[in-house]
Amino acid sequence: MRKVAVVGVGMTKFGERWEAGLKELTAEAGIRAIEDAGISGDEVEAVYVGNMSGGRFVGQEHIGALLADAMGLNPVPATRVEAACASGGLAFRQAYLAVASGEFDIVVAGGIEKMTDVLTGQATTTLGGAADQEWETFFGATFPSLYALIARRHMHEFGTTEEQLARVAVKNHYNGARNPFAQYQKEITLDQVLNSSPVAEPLKLLDCSPITDGAAAVVIASEDVAKKLTDTPVWVNASAQASDTLALHDRKSLTTLRATVEAGKKAFQKAGISPRDVDLAEVHDCFTIAEILAVEDLGFVKKGEGGKAVEDGMFDLNSDVSVNTSGGLKACGHPVGATGIKQVVEVTWQLRGEAGKRQVDKAEIGLTHNVGGSGATAVVHILSRYIDLRSRR
Amino acid sequence: MRKVAVVGVGMTKFGERWEAGLKELTAEAGIRAIEDAGISGDEVEAVYVGNMSGGRFVGQEHIGALLADAMGLNPVPATRVEAACASGGLAFRQAYLAVASGEFDIVVAGGIEKMTDVLTGQATTTLGGAADQEWETFFGATFPSLYALIARRHMHEFGTTEEQLARVAVKNHYNGARNPFAQYQKEITLDQVLNSSPVAEPLKLLDCSPITDGAAAVVIASEDVAKKLTDTPVWVNASAQASDTLALHDRKSLTTLRATVEAGKKAFQKAGISPRDVDLAEVHDCFTIAEILAVEDLGFVKKGEGGKAVEDGMFDLNSDVSVNTSGGLKACGHPVGATGIKQVVEVTWQLRGEAGKRQVDKAEIGLTHNVGGSGATAVVHILSRYIDLRSRR
Repeated sequence: MRKVAVVGVGMTKFGERWEAGLKELTAEAGIRAIEDAGISGDEVEAVYVGNMSGGRFVGQEHIGALLADAMGLNPVPATRVEAACASGGLAFRQAYLAVASGEFDIVVAGGIEKMTDVLTGQATTTLGGAADQEWETFFGATFPSLYALIARRHMHEFGTTEEQLARVAVKNHYNGARNPFAQYQKEITLDQVLNSSPVAEPLKLLDCSPITDGAAAVVIASEDVAKKLTDTPVWVNASAQASDTLALHDRKSLTTLRATVEAGKKAFQKAGISPRDVDLAEVHDCFTIAEILAVEDLGFVKKGEGGKAVEDGMFDLNSDVSVNTSGGLKACGHPVGATGIKQVVEVTWQLRGEAGKRQVDKAEIGLTHNVGGSGATAVVHILSRYIDLRSRR
Repeated sequence: MRKVAVVGVGMTKFGERWEAGLKELTAEAGIRAIEDAGISGDEVEAVYVGNMSGGRFVGQEHIGALLADAMGLNPVPATRVEAACASGGLAFRQAYLAVASGEFDIVVAGGIEKMTDVLTGQATTTLGGAADQEWETFFGATFPSLYALIARRHMHEFGTTEEQLARVAVKNHYNGARNPFAQYQKEITLDQVLNSSPVAEPLKLLDCSPITDGAAAVVIASEDVAKKLTDTPVWVNASAQASDTLALHDRKSLTTLRATVEAGKKAFQKAGISPRDVDLAEVHDCFTIAEILAVEDLGFVKKGEGGKAVEDGMFDLNSDVSVNTSGGLKACGHPVGATGIKQVVEVTWQLRGEAGKRQVDKAEIGLTHNVGGSGATAVVHILSRYIDLRSRR
């Protein structure tokens, strides 16, 4: 397989974007990424777009061709990829495979979700499409309730506390306050989280990621092309993906996302590094408990020690591993199909030293972790300044 | 890029499958394909699923992981691919690229749509998600009406007649009557088509493909593995895809699908053959006019001569090019996400000599052509008994 690098990135401001639809958001992010790569649209050979539920949010399927056209890239092959909230991560992975295969040299991977143009409650119902319709959604389960079950069990098994969960939100808002693209650019306190309205106990409003409009895009290229285009390519050292049952009741454990464990292991093996080599990670914190699962399942800490590690500041900006420097899903926002691509955008900015007030010192190796639903899909990418992490060349 | 072959195929009976949901249909097709390949589920390394609108048809997104689990393939990476009615063809293409890249040796590509569990009219509304929501669907355009515009213009420019359109349906029902998996296994007459109810003039009921439940699946493998698994591999000699605008009014011509032309040209170039080398083709006849556009845009006849060629029997079973031996979308049925995979299943059966009463004599080279919406996506595959068509070895 050929080596692949990220050579251009762009994203929209995340938030309630009442003035913009699917096409406008995609064009904004896509054109920024193409300009950042210093190429013209004519040089793009294919497009992959992550989108979860355009059909239900705005009545629009067939998103690939539509958005390629909106970016001015018609008639290149355009493909939509969907795996609920992991749609963006999977679009990046398919784009990576297409370049690695030798089929294309320059590909755009984008992600988009327009979530706010719906009636109250309808966004949560639509997101329910990511869970098992016949066994979960139909009976009234929503994602806050599914993750609340996970949180309650984690508290029971490992003594994780509501304060520790809240600490994830405080950290991610600290980072989001330093990200001009974030939906919520303000810090919050532990008390604010603990006193926010209950959504599905033990999860409160400020334990939950928001409903967000937004798009993100990256340009990736094969080794030869990447070296010509930029002096700061960000190499894709590993791409790995795994699945699990959609329904929580089919799993052996509520407190481990098996898909994350599998994808993480494979990714570290492919890259030839261990979790302790990672400088920064964008992990899937759709709820605060999800970040705790992620840091455990990816191997940054042992199972059960995530809450304590968060409390001790292990994942704060410029600590052991800077986690969710973008603000994460919690503060940067979570336009579901775009999140996986935004993670790659953030890691690229960090590895290039372009992350401004939230810059991680000497950032060399970054990881992205994108989850679909309550963990039926997980995809992990390892990116770095080095084309080969084994020899660090 | 590595060579890739189809080593196993399976499909469900297409039709109104009131007794089966997404999971049951997928399991039926997937397990047949895996058994046909003579492998166990443990050997499958990844799954790609084509599905257009599970979110709107049955409230279910996140189809990849769900259906991998239904087929017993958890925790392999599972990815849903969507491009409206071309979703199946694109899932096959992504699976092909994943094996060609060297990432996997054995991959399942499946397609599924469960379309009948909706209220009257809702299926057509949902299918409208494949057109441009802001410029077409919102103003009441449906697919019959969009293809009626195309048909009317084709008649105006080239003298194509309603009888010629009807002749497509008669031919495809003749073939469908010989396919035990087809939704409509009965022949129809020219008069029956011409006297059927108008849907969107000049298109009548029997010019239109039906609403269908169904699934299809194929197992593909890398060269070494394919040669070990079977004595009758069906090689993927070319895979090509292109895009166009979703909205008809943005195109230069109504009577040419530019995406088909682009994808077809690329596919023939990659395979090193010309249209006259093709023995059989499964083309996208969502409406009778669509088959006429397809045989022209793929180069089997010149632009404008499709109607006459159909009338002359050029595409009948065992004529110049046997087109839609499965019965096509018209008679075999059109579960939108499954159609592109079903086309590969049919071509594989034909090239192996397993197509029973509809067998094409000495079938060596087959083509599949899958279209999304009114032509914003087209994907063409060329498959044959030969690993290299240039040297016919």
